[in-house]
Amino acid sequence: MSGVLYAEDCGVNSSALSQAAATEMLDHLNPDVMVSTERVGRNENGIYYNMRGRDYGMGRARIDLLFDEAMVRGIPTLAVGDGGNEIGMGLVSDVVKISVPFAAPGDCPCGGGIGATSGADILMTAAVSNWGCTAICAAMAMRTGDARLIHTPKMEARMLEVMTANGLINSADGIIDGHVDGIRDTTHIALAELADAITRKALL
Amino acid sequence: MSGVLYAEDCGVNSSALSQAAATEMLDHLNPDVMVSTERVGRNENGIYYNMRGRDYGMGRARIDLLFDEAMVRGIPTLAVGDGGNEIGMGLVSDVVKISVPFAAPGDCPCGGGIGATSGADILMTAAVSNWGCTAICAAMAMRTGDARLIHTPKMEARMLEVMTANGLINSADGIIDGHVDGIRDTTHIALAELADAITRKALL
Repeated sequence: MSGVLYAEDCGVNSSALSQAAATEMLDHLNPDVMVSTERVGRNENGIYYNMRGRDYGMGRARIDLLFDEAMVRGIPTLAVGDGGNEIGMGLVSDVVKISVPFAAPGDCPCGGGIGATSGADILMTAAVSNWGCTAICAAMAMRTGDARLIHTPKMEARMLEVMTANGLINSADGIIDGHVDGIRDTTHIALAELADAITRKALL
Repeated sequence: MSGVLYAEDCGVNSSALSQAAATEMLDHLNPDVMVSTERVGRNENGIYYNMRGRDYGMGRARIDLLFDEAMVRGIPTLAVGDGGNEIGMGLVSDVVKISVPFAAPGDCPCGGGIGATSGADILMTAAVSNWGCTAICAAMAMRTGDARLIHTPKMEARMLEVMTANGLINSADGIIDGHVDGIRDTTHIALAELADAITRKALL
């Protein structure tokens, strides 16, 4: 099979089995490209930390190993992140260590920081990872001249509604609603509106 | 009477009578501050040009004379503009002449350009004047710590609806709708949403 493998689709839940699973999965799927957004990667001690320096790797798929294996194989990888602890941020680990809370050596219980070690062929940083993805869609629409690739405000609204209906939590407040990274849903829809309006006008 | 005099409220329709009317009006109202947004001012030859270099001064109140008189009297003036032909832009006339279409000497039928000669104590330039006003409201909310001064997306939507219901034209397309400066209404509402979200969070 040849296609896009979305990192969030994978169900590898044990560090011990992850490397073998990553190898097998890539053998089987042989993807054309791999895209990760805001997906945590292990730090230099193999721990998965959230932005507040808390180990939250329990039961979590080791998607970063999948990306590391993809890079070894020369499969193109694109990673989007906003906090320093995501896949891809290994490319800018020096900056993460001095700029991000809980990222300096010794900031975390393991003796390291939250910064991820995994890189990517292309790293896109954004104030909010979702906004980076919106920008990527806009860039794809511009490159191809196809407005159908724009991530519209209607799509953003539907995405937030579906995610909420399926129980995804707003981690900043610990409740289930359409807020992302502590920012209310209407703001994300507004961001998509601006990107849509700018891109659509440029495509006229 | 002491209060805010909104430029758009004035009904002075003849250049010949305008200076006397401006004097009388300021004598009577004695405003604390005067605010102008996107209001055309005369060029160096006394002509009122739109952004395409067309004389559209016919039947138009000479509000710029009111602001000139206010500055002579030391009444604080604030002007917002986005095109170079508005009250306040006289402060940056050199930049307008070399940066704005139809603003260089000789670009207009009178031999001059569209650039306005009137200044202001404070000039705020913006990509769209309305956005500058939204930013001013945000700044006022921040200075006073009062979120009620925020120009909310709901207020923006209502404003565009009321303006449209009262027949104000979308000058870019020559029709009556909620578009402003060639940008659709949903984008202006989105801009207000971003300013609202940022300001409200900063005030927490």
